[in-house]
Amino acid sequence: MPADGCVFCAIACGRAEASVVFEDERVIAFMDLRPVTPGHVLVIPKAHAEGLEDLREDVGARVWTVAHRLGRALRSSGLRCEGVNLFLADGEAAFQEVFHVHLHVFPRFQGDPFRIEADWRVCERRLLDGAAAAVRSGLAALDAPAR
Amino acid sequence: MPADGCVFCAIACGRAEASVVFEDERVIAFMDLRPVTPGHVLVIPKAHAEGLEDLREDVGARVWTVAHRLGRALRSSGLRCEGVNLFLADGEAAFQEVFHVHLHVFPRFQGDPFRIEADWRVCERRLLDGAAAAVRSGLAALDAPAR
Repeated sequence: MPADGCVFCAIACGRAEASVVFEDERVIAFMDLRPVTPGHVLVIPKAHAEGLEDLREDVGARVWTVAHRLGRALRSSGLRCEGVNLFLADGEAAFQEVFHVHLHVFPRFQGDPFRIEADWRVCERRLLDGAAAAVRSGLAALDAPAR
Repeated sequence: MPADGCVFCAIACGRAEASVVFEDERVIAFMDLRPVTPGHVLVIPKAHAEGLEDLREDVGARVWTVAHRLGRALRSSGLRCEGVNLFLADGEAAFQEVFHVHLHVFPRFQGDPFRIEADWRVCERRLLDGAAAAVRSGLAALDAPAR
Protein backbone atom coordinates (compact mmCIF):
# COMPACT_ATOMS: atom_id res chain seq x y z
CA MET A 1 0.00 0.00 0.00
CA PRO A 2 1.23 3.51 -0.78
CA ALA A 3 2.88 5.50 2.02
CA ASP A 4 1.35 8.90 2.70
CA GLY A 5 3.25 11.71 1.04
CA CYS A 6 5.74 9.39 -0.71
CA VAL A 7 6.42 10.73 -4.19
CA PHE A 8 7.65 7.35 -5.47
CA CYS A 9 4.49 5.62 -4.22
CA ALA A 10 2.53 8.29 -6.11
CA ILE A 11 4.49 7.46 -9.28
CA ALA A 12 4.09 3.71 -8.70
CA CYS A 13 0.31 3.99 -8.60
CA GLY A 14 0.07 6.48 -11.46
CA ARG A 15 -0.92 9.50 -9.36
CA ALA A 16 2.23 11.50 -10.19
CA GLU A 17 3.83 12.23 -13.54
CA ALA A 18 6.86 10.23 -14.59
CA SER A 19 8.65 9.20 -17.78
CA VAL A 20 8.23 5.45 -17.39
CA VAL A 21 10.50 3.01 -19.21
CA PHE A 22 9.42 -0.31 -17.71
CA GLU A 23 6.76 -1.68 -15.40
CA ASP A 24 5.56 -5.07 -14.13
CA GLU A 25 3.52 -6.12 -11.09
CA ARG A 26 6.32 -5.60 -8.60
CA VAL A 27 8.64 -2.97 -10.09
CA ILE A 28 8.54 0.30 -12.03
CA ALA A 29 11.42 2.15 -13.72
CA PHE A 30 11.32 5.81 -14.72
CA MET A 31 13.63 8.69 -15.55
CA ASP A 32 15.31 10.52 -12.66
CA LEU A 33 14.07 14.12 -12.56
CA ARG A 34 17.62 15.36 -11.90
CA PRO A 35 19.71 13.12 -14.13
CA VAL A 36 23.45 12.74 -13.64
CA THR A 37 23.58 12.04 -17.39
CA PRO A 38 20.81 11.74 -20.02
CA GLY A 39 19.32 8.28 -19.60
CA HIS A 40 19.49 8.20 -15.79
CA VAL A 41 16.80 5.74 -14.65
CA LEU A 42 15.48 4.80 -11.21
CA VAL A 43 14.16 1.32 -10.51
CA ILE A 44 11.83 1.00 -7.51
CA PRO A 45 9.60 -1.64 -5.93
CA LYS A 46 5.94 -0.66 -6.27
CA ALA A 47 5.25 -1.67 -2.67
CA HIS A 48 6.64 0.92 -0.31
CA ALA A 49 9.91 -0.01 1.40
CA GLU A 50 12.14 2.61 2.90
CA GLY A 51 15.44 0.82 2.47
CA LEU A 52 17.27 -2.50 2.42
CA GLU A 53 15.99 -3.48 5.86
CA ASP A 54 12.30 -3.57 4.92
CA LEU A 55 12.73 -4.54 1.24
CA ARG A 56 11.61 -8.10 0.55
CA GLU A 57 14.48 -10.22 -0.75
CA ASP A 58 12.63 -11.47 -3.84
CA VAL A 59 11.39 -7.98 -4.72
CA GLY A 60 14.95 -6.65 -4.33
CA ALA A 61 16.20 -9.32 -6.73
CA ARG A 62 13.58 -8.22 -9.25
CA VAL A 63 14.63 -4.56 -8.85
CA TRP A 64 18.19 -5.69 -9.57
CA THR A 65 17.26 -7.79 -12.60
CA VAL A 66 15.36 -4.89 -14.16
CA ALA A 67 18.34 -2.60 -13.45
CA HIS A 68 20.68 -5.17 -15.00
CA ARG A 69 18.58 -5.19 -18.18
CA LEU A 70 18.33 -1.39 -18.19
CA GLY A 71 22.11 -1.11 -17.87
CA ARG A 72 22.46 -3.27 -20.97
CA ALA A 73 19.64 -1.41 -22.74
CA LEU A 74 21.38 1.94 -22.24
CA ARG A 75 24.23 0.73 -24.41
CA SER A 76 21.92 0.19 -27.37
CA SER A 77 19.61 3.13 -26.66
CA GLY A 78 21.35 5.63 -28.91
CA LEU A 79 22.08 7.79 -25.85
CA ARG A 80 25.71 8.46 -25.13
CA CYS A 81 26.86 5.46 -23.09
CA GLU A 82 30.43 4.21 -22.73
CA GLY A 83 29.82 2.70 -19.31
CA VAL A 84 27.09 2.28 -16.71
CA ASN A 85 26.87 2.84 -12.97
CA LEU A 86 24.40 1.30 -10.56
CA PHE A 87 24.06 3.08 -7.25
CA LEU A 88 21.86 2.66 -4.22
CA ALA A 89 21.78 4.86 -1.13
CA ASP A 90 20.34 3.28 2.00
CA GLY A 91 19.92 5.86 4.75
CA GLU A 92 20.53 9.59 5.02
CA ALA A 93 24.21 9.06 5.89
CA ALA A 94 24.54 7.25 2.54
CA PHE A 95 22.95 10.18 0.64
CA GLN A 96 19.43 8.74 0.42
CA GLU A 97 17.02 11.62 -0.21
CA VAL A 98 13.72 9.92 -1.10
CA PHE A 99 12.85 7.31 1.50
CA HIS A 100 11.39 4.76 -0.88
CA VAL A 101 14.20 2.44 -1.91
CA HIS A 102 15.50 3.10 -5.44
CA LEU A 103 18.32 1.79 -7.57
CA HIS A 104 19.99 4.34 -9.85
CA VAL A 105 21.13 3.22 -13.32
CA PHE A 106 22.91 5.82 -15.41
CA PRO A 107 25.07 5.94 -18.50
CA ARG A 108 28.61 7.24 -18.28
CA PHE A 109 30.92 8.71 -20.90
CA GLN A 110 34.28 10.40 -20.99
CA GLY A 111 34.00 13.94 -19.70
CA ASP A 112 30.64 13.49 -17.98
CA PRO A 113 30.18 15.38 -14.69
CA PHE A 114 29.89 12.40 -12.32
CA ARG A 115 32.73 12.05 -9.82
CA ILE A 116 33.45 9.92 -6.79
CA GLU A 117 35.87 10.84 -4.05
CA ALA A 118 37.25 8.77 -1.23
CA ASP A 119 40.50 8.11 0.56
CA TRP A 120 41.55 4.92 -1.18
CA ARG A 121 44.50 3.25 0.49
CA VAL A 122 45.54 -0.37 0.68
CA CYS A 123 44.48 -1.67 4.07
CA GLU A 124 46.48 -4.12 6.21
CA ARG A 125 45.31 -7.75 6.07
CA ARG A 126 44.98 -7.82 9.85
CA LEU A 127 42.42 -4.99 9.72
CA LEU A 128 40.60 -6.53 6.76
CA ASP A 129 40.35 -9.83 8.60
CA GLY A 130 38.95 -8.01 11.64
CA ALA A 131 36.33 -6.25 9.52
CA ALA A 132 35.48 -9.55 7.82
CA ALA A 133 34.86 -11.17 11.22
CA ALA A 134 32.54 -8.29 12.15
CA VAL A 135 30.60 -8.60 8.89
CA ARG A 136 30.26 -12.38 9.37
CA SER A 137 28.85 -11.76 12.85
CA GLY A 138 26.35 -9.34 11.28
CA LEU A 139 25.33 -12.03 8.77
CA ALA A 140 24.93 -14.56 11.58
CA ALA A 141 22.68 -12.08 13.44
CA LEU A 142 20.39 -11.91 10.37
CA ASP A 143 19.89 -15.66 10.54
CA ALA A 144 19.48 -15.79 14.32
CA PRO A 145 16.14 -17.30 15.45
CA ALA A 146 15.14 -14.07 17.26
CA ARG A 147 14.31 -12.43 13.89
CA MET B 1 36.42 -21.14 -15.80
CA PRO B 2 38.94 -18.61 -14.44
CA ALA B 3 40.21 -15.89 -16.79
CA ASP B 4 43.98 -15.68 -17.16
CA GLY B 5 45.48 -12.98 -14.97
CA CYS B 6 42.16 -12.03 -13.36
CA VAL B 7 42.76 -11.30 -9.67
CA PHE B 8 39.10 -11.85 -8.76
CA CYS B 9 39.08 -15.25 -10.49
CA ALA B 10 42.18 -16.07 -8.44
CA ILE B 11 40.28 -15.12 -5.25
CA ALA B 12 37.17 -17.03 -6.38
CA CYS B 13 39.12 -20.25 -6.74
CA GLY B 14 41.21 -19.75 -3.60
CA ARG B 15 44.52 -19.07 -5.36
CA ALA B 16 44.82 -15.50 -4.00
CA GLU B 17 44.47 -14.23 -0.45
CA ALA B 18 41.25 -12.53 0.57
CA SER B 19 39.26 -11.82 3.72
CA VAL B 20 36.14 -13.77 2.79
CA VAL B 21 32.80 -13.05 4.46
CA PHE B 22 30.46 -15.27 2.43
CA GLU B 23 30.63 -17.92 -0.25
CA ASP B 24 28.25 -20.27 -2.07
CA GLU B 25 28.48 -22.15 -5.37
CA ARG B 26 27.91 -19.07 -7.53
CA VAL B 27 29.07 -16.07 -5.51
CA ILE B 28 31.86 -15.00 -3.16
CA ALA B 29 32.08 -11.87 -1.01
CA PHE B 30 35.30 -10.50 0.47
CA MET B 31 36.76 -7.29 1.87
CA ASP B 32 37.88 -4.63 -0.60
CA LEU B 33 41.64 -4.16 -0.32
CA ARG B 34 41.21 -0.37 -0.49
CA PRO B 35 38.10 0.23 1.59
CA VAL B 36 36.13 3.45 1.35
CA THR B 37 35.13 2.77 4.97
CA PRO B 38 35.88 -0.18 7.30
CA GLY B 39 33.50 -2.97 6.28
CA HIS B 40 33.68 -2.33 2.52
CA VAL B 41 32.80 -5.64 0.84
CA LEU B 42 32.84 -6.76 -2.78
CA VAL B 43 30.41 -9.36 -4.07
CA ILE B 44 31.40 -11.17 -7.26
CA PRO B 45 30.18 -14.07 -9.34
CA LYS B 46 32.66 -16.96 -9.20
CA ALA B 47 32.37 -17.51 -12.94
CA HIS B 48 34.24 -14.83 -14.81
CA ALA B 49 32.11 -12.11 -16.35
CA GLU B 50 33.57 -8.77 -17.30
CA GLY B 51 30.46 -6.69 -16.82
CA LEU B 52 26.68 -6.51 -17.08
CA GLU B 53 26.68 -7.61 -20.71
CA ASP B 54 28.16 -11.06 -20.11
CA LEU B 55 26.80 -11.59 -16.58
CA ARG B 56 24.05 -14.24 -16.45
CA GLU B 57 20.79 -12.76 -15.21
CA ASP B 58 20.25 -15.37 -12.49
CA VAL B 59 23.83 -15.08 -11.26
CA GLY B 60 23.45 -11.28 -11.16
CA ALA B 61 20.32 -11.65 -9.05
CA ARG B 62 22.26 -13.86 -6.64
CA VAL B 63 25.08 -11.27 -6.45
CA TRP B 64 22.41 -8.68 -5.58
CA THR B 65 20.72 -10.85 -2.94
CA VAL B 66 24.02 -11.49 -1.19
CA ALA B 67 24.79 -7.74 -1.33
CA HIS B 68 21.32 -6.98 0.05
CA ARG B 69 21.97 -9.29 3.02
CA LEU B 70 25.46 -7.86 3.52
CA GLY B 71 24.05 -4.33 3.54
CA ARG B 72 21.71 -5.38 6.35
CA ALA B 73 24.48 -7.32 8.10
CA LEU B 74 26.72 -4.25 8.21
CA ARG B 75 24.18 -2.51 10.44
CA SER B 76 24.50 -5.21 13.08
CA SER B 77 28.21 -5.90 12.59
CA GLY B 78 29.48 -3.56 15.30
CA LEU B 79 31.32 -1.57 12.61
CA ARG B 80 30.35 2.07 12.31
CA CYS B 81 27.34 2.06 9.98
CA GLU B 82 24.65 4.73 9.76
CA GLY B 83 23.86 3.99 6.11
CA VAL B 84 24.94 1.74 3.27
CA ASN B 85 25.84 2.29 -0.36
CA LEU B 86 25.77 -0.26 -3.14
CA PHE B 87 27.79 0.66 -6.20
CA LEU B 88 28.66 -1.07 -9.45
CA ALA B 89 30.92 0.23 -12.20
CA ASP B 90 30.43 -1.32 -15.63
CA GLY B 91 33.14 -0.20 -18.03
CA GLU B 92 36.20 2.01 -17.74
CA ALA B 93 34.15 5.18 -18.36
CA ALA B 94 32.12 4.23 -15.28
CA PHE B 95 35.28 3.84 -13.14
CA GLN B 96 35.56 0.03 -13.41
CA GLU B 97 39.15 -0.95 -12.59
CA VAL B 98 39.04 -4.73 -12.22
CA PHE B 99 37.32 -6.30 -15.22
CA HIS B 100 35.50 -9.03 -13.34
CA VAL B 101 32.08 -7.68 -12.39
CA HIS B 102 31.81 -6.72 -8.71
CA LEU B 103 29.19 -5.05 -6.55
CA HIS B 104 30.52 -2.76 -3.81
CA VAL B 105 28.73 -2.70 -0.45
CA PHE B 106 30.08 -0.27 2.12
CA PRO B 107 28.95 1.29 5.37
CA ARG B 108 28.53 5.02 5.64
CA PHE B 109 28.58 7.39 8.60
CA GLN B 110 28.58 11.09 9.19
CA GLY B 111 31.97 12.58 8.38
CA ASP B 112 33.22 9.62 6.33
CA PRO B 113 35.39 10.46 3.31
CA PHE B 114 33.06 9.23 0.53
CA ARG B 115 31.69 11.94 -1.73
CA ILE B 116 29.72 12.08 -4.96
CA GLU B 117 29.68 15.00 -7.34
CA ALA B 118 27.46 15.70 -10.29
CA ASP B 119 25.58 18.56 -11.88
CA TRP B 120 22.11 17.86 -10.48
CA ARG B 121 19.43 19.98 -12.10
CA VAL B 122 15.77 19.37 -12.71
CA CYS B 123 15.37 18.30 -16.32
CA GLU B 124 12.46 19.31 -18.58
CA ARG B 125 9.76 16.67 -19.03
CA ARG B 126 10.16 16.84 -22.81
CA LEU B 127 13.81 15.79 -22.52
CA LEU B 128 13.01 13.10 -19.95
CA ASP B 129 10.33 11.69 -22.24
CA GLY B 130 12.83 11.65 -25.10
CA ALA B 131 15.40 9.80 -23.00
CA ALA B 132 12.70 7.37 -21.84
CA ALA B 133 11.81 6.57 -25.45
CA ALA B 134 15.49 5.90 -26.18
CA VAL B 135 15.81 3.59 -23.17
CA ARG B 136 12.65 1.71 -24.17
CA SER B 137 14.12 1.19 -27.65
CA GLY B 138 17.25 -0.19 -25.99
CA LEU B 139 15.12 -2.61 -23.95
CA ALA B 140 13.28 -3.70 -27.10
CA ALA B 141 16.64 -4.37 -28.78
CA LEU B 142 17.58 -6.75 -25.93
CA ASP B 143 14.48 -8.80 -26.65
CA ALA B 144 14.86 -8.72 -30.44
CA PRO B 145 15.11 -12.21 -32.00
CA ALA B 146 18.60 -11.47 -33.41
CA ARG B 147 20.11 -11.96 -29.96
